[in-house]
Amino acid sequence: MIMIKKAGLIGGGVIGAGWAARLALTGIDVAVFDPDPEAERKIGAVLDNARRAYGKLTLAPLPAQGAVRVAPTMEAAVAEADFVQESLPEREDLKRKVLAAVSRAVRPDVIIASSTSGLLPSRLQADMAGPERMVVGHPFNPVYLLPLVEVCGGDRTSPQTVTRAMDFYRSIGMHPLHVRKEIDGFIADRLLEAVWREALWLVNDGIATTTEIDDAIRYGAGLRWSFMGTFLIYRLAGGEAGMRHFLEQFGPALKLPWTKLEAPELTETLIERIAAQSDDQAAGVSIRELERLRDDCLVAVLQGLRGHNFAAGAVLNRHEEKLYEATHPRIMADDDDLSQPLSLHRGRVEPDWIDYNGHMTESRYLHVFGDSSDALFRYVGINADYHAAGKSYYTVETHIMNLREVGAGAPLHTTTQILAVDDKRMHIFHCLYATDDATLLATAEQMLLHVDTKAARTVPADAAILTRLKRIAAAHGKLPKPNGAGRFVGAPRA
Amino acid sequence: MIMIKKAGLIGGGVIGAGWAARLALTGIDVAVFDPDPEAERKIGAVLDNARRAYGKLTLAPLPAQGAVRVAPTMEAAVAEADFVQESLPEREDLKRKVLAAVSRAVRPDVIIASSTSGLLPSRLQADMAGPERMVVGHPFNPVYLLPLVEVCGGDRTSPQTVTRAMDFYRSIGMHPLHVRKEIDGFIADRLLEAVWREALWLVNDGIATTTEIDDAIRYGAGLRWSFMGTFLIYRLAGGEAGMRHFLEQFGPALKLPWTKLEAPELTETLIERIAAQSDDQAAGVSIRELERLRDDCLVAVLQGLRGHNFAAGAVLNRHEEKLYEATHPRIMADDDDLSQPLSLHRGRVEPDWIDYNGHMTESRYLHVFGDSSDALFRYVGINADYHAAGKSYYTVETHIMNLREVGAGAPLHTTTQILAVDDKRMHIFHCLYATDDATLLATAEQMLLHVDTKAARTVPADAAILTRLKRIAAAHGKLPKPNGAGRFVGAPRA
Repeated sequence: MIMIKKAGLIGGGVIGAGWAARLALTGIDVAVFDPDPEAERKIGAVLDNARRAYGKLTLAPLPAQGAVRVAPTMEAAVAEADFVQESLPEREDLKRKVLAAVSRAVRPDVIIASSTSGLLPSRLQADMAGPERMVVGHPFNPVYLLPLVEVCGGDRTSPQTVTRAMDFYRSIGMHPLHVRKEIDGFIADRLLEAVWREALWLVNDGIATTTEIDDAIRYGAGLRWSFMGTFLIYRLAGGEAGMRHFLEQFGPALKLPWTKLEAPELTETLIERIAAQSDDQAAGVSIRELERLRDDCLVAVLQGLRGHNFAAGAVLNRHEEKLYEATHPRIMADDDDLSQPLSLHRGRVEPDWIDYNGHMTESRYLHVFGDSSDALFRYVGINADYHAAGKSYYTVETHIMNLREVGAGAPLHTTTQILAVDDKRMHIFHCLYATDDATLLATAEQMLLHVDTKAARTVPADAAILTRLKRIAAAHGKLPKPNGAGRFVGAPRA
Repeated sequence: MIMIKKAGLIGGGVIGAGWAARLALTGIDVAVFDPDPEAERKIGAVLDNARRAYGKLTLAPLPAQGAVRVAPTMEAAVAEADFVQESLPEREDLKRKVLAAVSRAVRPDVIIASSTSGLLPSRLQADMAGPERMVVGHPFNPVYLLPLVEVCGGDRTSPQTVTRAMDFYRSIGMHPLHVRKEIDGFIADRLLEAVWREALWLVNDGIATTTEIDDAIRYGAGLRWSFMGTFLIYRLAGGEAGMRHFLEQFGPALKLPWTKLEAPELTETLIERIAAQSDDQAAGVSIRELERLRDDCLVAVLQGLRGHNFAAGAVLNRHEEKLYEATHPRIMADDDDLSQPLSLHRGRVEPDWIDYNGHMTESRYLHVFGDSSDALFRYVGINADYHAAGKSYYTVETHIMNLREVGAGAPLHTTTQILAVDDKRMHIFHCLYATDDATLLATAEQMLLHVDTKAARTVPADAAILTRLKRIAAAHGKLPKPNGAGRFVGAPRA
């Protein structure tokens, strides 16, 4: 296989710029031709978004970013390219003409792919030199994050071109789907276009607004579609009896006017074909196992969205707030039991906290300990107003003992013991536990200083705060010194 | 509002059992009538799944679980109910008859909701006593996790019933969507049914298999649909020019045979209505901000799925494995200068690393030190193959000194000194500098153990790795002991 080091892009709109970003972030140099005088700025904005997203997406080391330049002509964009991707507006005449010109400006071994959402490759390749190198590679916006790319050859496309294109797309982190039979709209856009046209009818007929239509997807079926398509989802909707039962139960609804689209006749042949393909798809995994996989994925998606307080994640947040109301974190009361270390923070190993060893990465231990310190601050009355007044505790020293690994999703809780407090200093000791089996996972001993954040110097904490801290410290002073406190790195273990 | 403490459910299939689970987990007692002799077992299985999912979904304290019992008759199921939910097969005659009977068996103030996916409430309520209490409450499978419920009244439904039903659904953690105009299939199922029928045509016509069709959604548009619907997504596809531009660009495609469903005429009136509703929906948030929200949500969803190594999460996992493999700063060479601490890692303070004090949060210091350890591993030859063989260094102890704060965007670099190495242990000392002014920001002293990750016990590192580490340690042994090495938390400062 030819190593792809340089890509030539024709068209730098939302899709073309998205390709530029995905390719550059995979270490490939990119030259883009787009006649828009603002192309460079617009592509730069998409690149900025993509860099930002990748910074959050993965802890894996990204290769040195490829260079992205805007070329003055189509020929200049493709002259040195090892792969060409065309992302022009969906006009067959335009694409056909440009692809013909590109085919005469590149090396004969270079694959020329079109991002078309649904035009037929057999027609797009008609005027090309070497049409066997032409293939559709239809991506989805944002191209730099969504893995799907539909790959479809035309009548004159060689099988090698399809294979090579799929290999290349896989190498840049995508999931190529081979569209085996050339058809208008391929597979994905036939489905998307059906939704889109039905949605346009709903607005056209005054049934619902764009907001209502979007909500009808994103709070319901859209959550499932992020990891399972309609057929597998409906197999599960059939319950223990599976796909055939579902088809029998919902077959009659295909005759009802539940969309403006007519369904095919649900013949025994079609039922048999769907049931057999669905069995292949499930690959022997039981309905109950698939239900649990579905639920696990839904939980993960809901939790991810909760972090951004958006869509179904916002619904979950609101519901949780109500659930927490009864036991809301509150400021220390006079009659609180301080005879044991405080238990103020609960959490969970988030999916993006996992490193290549499959466990919570070391910095997230300190993250949880930091959250526990924050919980202590709130408990003694330090709030946003206190911080806004330019007062805060800063950590100056930390000693962590890592005792056990922990995997994604595990519930966690911490305890916090105050070892000593004076007007400016606080010496504390956190323990981190796996809640399920009460295993001690790690400990952290910390020294914090109370600072005037504007003057950047230590100052005494407010009296009300100190009173509470000193009461806790007095009570905790009766507890034994925690195992590990006062240790230096490499001291002999007890 | 009447407090709902007991619910009566008619039908205990996949949807009815899902309601039972959501209600019970919200503390509501449930009585279910279903003539299936296996109803109790099947409902129990769904309840088990739901309890398992809630255990993972939220750390919030759940109320005491409501009781779930299978009632011997319809009348027994609804006799004491404060709310009734019917979830029978989609047969209008059946639902109509049962709803009429239920309406005569419950208190007159009790709302009677139907889970129908698309039958018209005006027809379902026709034979009821007190039809003003009847409403559609159409949920989505699994009912206990998906928040959407479409609420639609018939001709004779009172506005109070719609309001009360929506309040109740909200109180059990759902997102009620008011379907203001009664229509077959409501809003969601019109969209789902369009996808379903188009998908059936694709299988019927031999274009694609159920697996291919599902993949065409779940690796692409389905990921977006988990938090944004088609209209907002297409607003973003229009780039900076927004919805009107998108409609102009993709309007002509509505005439193409990209689905078997005909589109409405894209008149200026329709364009204007969509553009105006889309502006309302965006509520003044810019395209760039919405793009970042979209990307943040996509990243969260992808990371959530990565944790289950499923669908797009599996694609991300495979890509990360390659990234970890490919980035191998070069391995140590015989003539490398080892007379100074190694300088192997450079980075930058990312914007999302900033805490409420306006500085890099404490756990990110350890994040950078962790990256520096990873760089050291690669330098001495530890790569993905080594990890795949079940060998790795785990951090067991860390001592951090925080010396200076640092703000967003600052370039960083670290140095790493090896203090001691034996077959199983490595004792190292990192320094973190702000690259711009060479300020020392923090230090970290760490002890690492070499482990067999499968057996979870310490084992000697491979000889080739040890040879390199020992060469570095020998050279670094001539350097002075770093300031802070051997410290315990709270020791007097030098």
